[in-house]
Amino acid sequence: MSNPAGTSSAAAETAVGPVEGFHAVIPAGGAGTRLWPLSRRRAPKFLHDLTGSGRTLLQATVDRLSPLTGADGIMLVTGTHHVAACRAQLPGLDEQNVLAEPSPRDSMAAIGLAAAVLAERHGDVVIGSFAADHVISGQPAFESAVREAVAAARAGYVATIGIAASRPSVAFGYIRSDGTLGVDGAPSAQHVRGFTEKPDAATAREYIASGEYRWNAGMFVVRTSVLLGHLAEQRPELHDGLRTIAKAWDTGDRDRVLADVWPGLEKIAIDHAIAEPVADAGGVAVVPGTFGWDDVGDFNSLAALLPSDDDEGSKVLGDTGDVLRIDSAGSVVVPASGRLVSVLGLDDVVVVDTPDALLVTTRARAQQVKQVVDAARARDLDELL
Amino acid sequence: MSNPAGTSSAAAETAVGPVEGFHAVIPAGGAGTRLWPLSRRRAPKFLHDLTGSGRTLLQATVDRLSPLTGADGIMLVTGTHHVAACRAQLPGLDEQNVLAEPSPRDSMAAIGLAAAVLAERHGDVVIGSFAADHVISGQPAFESAVREAVAAARAGYVATIGIAASRPSVAFGYIRSDGTLGVDGAPSAQHVRGFTEKPDAATAREYIASGEYRWNAGMFVVRTSVLLGHLAEQRPELHDGLRTIAKAWDTGDRDRVLADVWPGLEKIAIDHAIAEPVADAGGVAVVPGTFGWDDVGDFNSLAALLPSDDDEGSKVLGDTGDVLRIDSAGSVVVPASGRLVSVLGLDDVVVVDTPDALLVTTRARAQQVKQVVDAARARDLDELL
Repeated sequence: MSNPAGTSSAAAETAVGPVEGFHAVIPAGGAGTRLWPLSRRRAPKFLHDLTGSGRTLLQATVDRLSPLTGADGIMLVTGTHHVAACRAQLPGLDEQNVLAEPSPRDSMAAIGLAAAVLAERHGDVVIGSFAADHVISGQPAFESAVREAVAAARAGYVATIGIAASRPSVAFGYIRSDGTLGVDGAPSAQHVRGFTEKPDAATAREYIASGEYRWNAGMFVVRTSVLLGHLAEQRPELHDGLRTIAKAWDTGDRDRVLADVWPGLEKIAIDHAIAEPVADAGGVAVVPGTFGWDDVGDFNSLAALLPSDDDEGSKVLGDTGDVLRIDSAGSVVVPASGRLVSVLGLDDVVVVDTPDALLVTTRARAQQVKQVVDAARARDLDELL
Repeated sequence: MSNPAGTSSAAAETAVGPVEGFHAVIPAGGAGTRLWPLSRRRAPKFLHDLTGSGRTLLQATVDRLSPLTGADGIMLVTGTHHVAACRAQLPGLDEQNVLAEPSPRDSMAAIGLAAAVLAERHGDVVIGSFAADHVISGQPAFESAVREAVAAARAGYVATIGIAASRPSVAFGYIRSDGTLGVDGAPSAQHVRGFTEKPDAATAREYIASGEYRWNAGMFVVRTSVLLGHLAEQRPELHDGLRTIAKAWDTGDRDRVLADVWPGLEKIAIDHAIAEPVADAGGVAVVPGTFGWDDVGDFNSLAALLPSDDDEGSKVLGDTGDVLRIDSAGSVVVPASGRLVSVLGLDDVVVVDTPDALLVTTRARAQQVKQVVDAARARDLDELL
């Protein structure tokens, strides 16, 4: 089908410079339990360089978004315990652009707070929410998708970016879409018919075969007025609480109001609070993303992001000089203690070596590392979690 | 066959107290490369507690021999680098009973030096040589075998103790024997027909089936005069060198003579220098040992010596509180760094965790750990060896 958006697409792809009135919101939370002992409660996944790029996932997220927002257009939302580490990793981030949550209240409260604070400061702007701990490759394609999503957001949609599903993964939720949106500046955007939870393997295969489904990477681009309007309708108490906090945020009342209101806020994901009900009402758009994406959920997916260290598919995250492998094809070694890690005769083994805890498992069991964390917790080894 | 030695046997088994004029020689050497990274060049196998008994192999060796020799009847031969560690582990050992070798010259030089020094000090006494890094269970049976071996030695034999071969091991040499010796006080001693090198699996099975073969644990009991006489005949230069050193040992000339003579001594095992040729001439006897014995050659044999830590045959050498296992039956974990070692979904895995080096392998590959050490050496990681 030929349509006039073709020209807009070309325009979007060649656009350079920040998008006017666009702010990125980066919720930095989540323990990354399946990446233990590399990822810890006090040093979660987003604070680590998991790709060997020299930049942590958080830094890479900011690097990726800054060209779209400009230096002042990044707002980080994180737990009070992580503020110092985040600011140390992001020395260019203005103090007022770091929102500290007194306790975790899930993604709706985090993103809603950022939206409400930005609305107080800047009025009706477009925000885009992007997790701090995802890995993305293909910056031009990423920027192009975000620019289209901003265009859809300006037209009043809650816009998300759907990731090309390269395999029938059961680790991700899916977005089902059809029908071109027809919004200027968002030529590839489609109507979202619905969101799904993580499917079973058979369902995932059906999704992939149908061509109608993309992975949900939790990226939401929306006008503050639209987001807060939906929130007022769907979750009025949460909306009112966040608005109250946001009004006090840049005043001397912040701490008092936070202490009063924050603990009572509903814990709910933005997917359930807004994306799903609004999609049912036809208010959600999806821009197909053609960039590489991974949420680095476990050591097996981490391995997939690393280059092979030999001709047997072995991977090392760290100094390869600290690893000595013999007959260990496909092994994944994270030498993070400075010690020599030697592996003899174990294919597909995963060895994660940190100064106070060691994990030895297999790539096939990577999703079950949470069991180890649970067992350590049951043994009161909280200082290692 | 009924023979009068029956009564002597009963006498030997019930004998108590030190054996008059009997000295134990403990050559403490050998890196225990297949137990790396637990065993190191600078802290070899014999300096470690490998059974969880609370005593190192060296200490347990002395504990085992002292009842037979008395406190002053133990002579240790070790490298100069290990003298301080040995003396720290054996505070009761008299300084003059530690012979320091300037460099490794194999077992004939070590045992021959001890024999020559003891001959200078005490004349023609019986010595028994026992490795510092073997594990033995069944003290009464051990003492009984040694007492018989001493009796055979007094009769002029080079007496060895043959270990009941419980499996067709290819890791040990074998002793072939037949025909009762008929020496008073050594009722079970037999003539040795020959020694074998480590056999292949088929040969080992034939050995076991024949009933004529026992494992060679390298234990030799012999009069100093007999040993030095054989040495003078078989290896006259080595004999003369050792005699020269021994004459100077307790004088102010020791260091000068050692520096002159030691470096030129032939490197040869006592098995090749004496046991084999003398056996061919009918001069070697063997006493069947009925005690448990192992040379703890690798992590698989180490595992066999440890009690199971669960009902799945998993073993821990160290603090079980430092180990967290899920679905890892038959695993062998040595938590020697104080860190938490967690294993998920790997049966029969071997994890040896030390402060500066980690080994992950399988029980089946335990014999090949030397490959890792060789690879580390090739990478100039000498400080870890």
